Amino acid sequence: MDRRNFLTAGVAGAAAGALAAPAIAQDKQVVRMVTTWPRNFPGLGTGAQRVADRITAASGGRIEVKLFAAGELVPPFESFDAVATGAAEMYHGAEYYWQGKHKGYNFFAAVPMGLTGQELQAWVHFGGGRELWDELGAKFGVKGFLAGNTGVQFGGWFRNPILSMDDMKGLKMRIPGLGGEVLRAVGASAVSLPGGEIFPALQAGTIDATEWVGPYNDLAFGFHNILKTYMYPGFHEPGSGLSVGINMGWWDSLSAADKVMIEACCSAENDVMTAEFNARNGGALAALVNEHGVQLHRFPDEVFAELAKASEDVLAAVGSEDELGGRIFESFRTFRASVAAYTKLSEEAYTAARGAALGI
Amino acid sequence: MDRRNFLTAGVAGAAAGALAAPAIAQDKQVVRMVTTWPRNFPGLGTGAQRVADRITAASGGRIEVKLFAAGELVPPFESFDAVATGAAEMYHGAEYYWQGKHKGYNFFAAVPMGLTGQELQAWVHFGGGRELWDELGAKFGVKGFLAGNTGVQFGGWFRNPILSMDDMKGLKMRIPGLGGEVLRAVGASAVSLPGGEIFPALQAGTIDATEWVGPYNDLAFGFHNILKTYMYPGFHEPGSGLSVGINMGWWDSLSAADKVMIEACCSAENDVMTAEFNARNGGALAALVNEHGVQLHRFPDEVFAELAKASEDVLAAVGSEDELGGRIFESFRTFRASVAAYTKLSEEAYTAARGAALGI
Repeated sequence: MDRRNFLTAGVAGAAAGALAAPAIAQDKQVVRMVTTWPRNFPGLGTGAQRVADRITAASGGRIEVKLFAAGELVPPFESFDAVATGAAEMYHGAEYYWQGKHKGYNFFAAVPMGLTGQELQAWVHFGGGRELWDELGAKFGVKGFLAGNTGVQFGGWFRNPILSMDDMKGLKMRIPGLGGEVLRAVGASAVSLPGGEIFPALQAGTIDATEWVGPYNDLAFGFHNILKTYMYPGFHEPGSGLSVGINMGWWDSLSAADKVMIEACCSAENDVMTAEFNARNGGALAALVNEHGVQLHRFPDEVFAELAKASEDVLAAVGSEDELGGRIFESFRTFRASVAAYTKLSEEAYTAARGAALGI
Repeated sequence: MDRRNFLTAGVAGAAAGALAAPAIAQDKQVVRMVTTWPRNFPGLGTGAQRVADRITAASGGRIEVKLFAAGELVPPFESFDAVATGAAEMYHGAEYYWQGKHKGYNFFAAVPMGLTGQELQAWVHFGGGRELWDELGAKFGVKGFLAGNTGVQFGGWFRNPILSMDDMKGLKMRIPGLGGEVLRAVGASAVSLPGGEIFPALQAGTIDATEWVGPYNDLAFGFHNILKTYMYPGFHEPGSGLSVGINMGWWDSLSAADKVMIEACCSAENDVMTAEFNARNGGALAALVNEHGVQLHRFPDEVFAELAKASEDVLAAVGSEDELGGRIFESFRTFRASVAAYTKLSEEAYTAARGAALGI
């Protein structure tokens, strides 16, 4: 997915708010959380709202977090700058949106052939990710915390099943970001389209295929009304981490207690949003297949292997921006090898055996 | 695993504390968290300590949570009663320890052929589990929150690889709880031994095999010094949820703000402990294989299918205790079918394809 373009339409004219600095009176302050999501966008916007409400509630209203959806205070992709400059105290978004600031940010959200949501948590909390993220954030005055995950994104919607690499050549697919770079490397024609333009482009035949998020969000979008082939798994975003970014000056002004409370509120959302996507995707997947005649197809091993090879090249380039970028990439790559070997023998082996035994 | 027996030795004489009721003065109270773990037991005891410390810190010390490790205030498996009666305000443990109170508690920790950690979160938060858990807890005056997960437990340590069901017949294996019931149903001789007695029993040949937790905890225990065959995946505990249980009277006395804060602190630990097990298990697995000559073997499909069949019978019996137990079981079973179908096409499909493509 790339919610960036989905969101751009209609917010170009939104004025950067001229709100006052956070009101501090009688130990109470109102702080601003800008987000990259439309208000209450399912899963993501609702998750951001939960973080804001949780902090407000847990502080007994001392820290009232007022959420501004995409474009309400600043355009969505100025959220990082808004927080860096103090125009807002925090944002909720995905770190890969800030790759224009530093490509290393990609690794703290999702990269092709990268970490699952659980593996990302593990890297950040216990694999060296935290320290590198802090080092990166210090350059901009922004402190980041994981605060949500979509889980593995699906491969996308196609006219016909992808049976070999030949079917990828020349394919006009809407897939933005690093996933798009990978597709271009294997001969497809990857384009980036705002969310609102995907449906018309599919109807007009301007594009042949598109990815979005997963069953829950895709069902709501209605892609199954045009395309019936749903390919899995996605290679491009295997567990998209969402984050809260906090203005460092404001963070430093907080009491030790409020720092712990806010970090817990973000970490809790990582737990809760992951739960929401897992729960709702199951029901939506069943609806797509049983009620809408959607055909599920797995990418052939040969195709996935080619996408993986191209992904490794793209990641190496992403990780070569500078010395810090190189260290982030190496930490990611070393951790991925270790945790992936464990995931293979634990969750993957278990769910595969369970599925075979129970006929799932 | 069954930390129950590991912990029983040496705590029989621990007196139930005669501590005073929580001291409330100047808006500050000291509350007691009893746990079923030895102090700082890696992953579990350290996780419980993190929850206690997080609540203390997030409240700015207003709610000082004093942790009592297994046996320090009450014997570990009296933790539930201690909280139900108000002798302690909260516990950190695993809900299946309370199956003597109601067998439905098993489903909120782990059951054979059950949910992974992420799937358990999804059921509790968005699949109806929360409401059923509350209904169950109301019978005893205890409110439960997920507060940690070990991930998929490994199948265990054996003298030789299990190649067929013939190798299971008559096998003397240390595996307690519902997993043990399943093994007995397929003709093995499952025994329950305190953790401290496992090693001598293996040396003496009293048992042939044992399970414990996973690479991180198992490496520390040193089973690889006696047995070199490590079977995966475990069927018996596919994502053991740990919980904080809270005395309902104390919970009701809290402000709305403190309720949100405490729930966030528990949810955060679900996130953090999962991350810790995933991160540390990867390194420990590599050490077992590369430094200690451990041989990994996957349970053959035939064996897993037999274990699964027996597990379904055991679960049906567990879910037939009473009307509420029946509803918990049905909710679990319906949710498992839905979420497992999704997991298969998302995390499982992705990590399998990644592993094949990257040679992991």
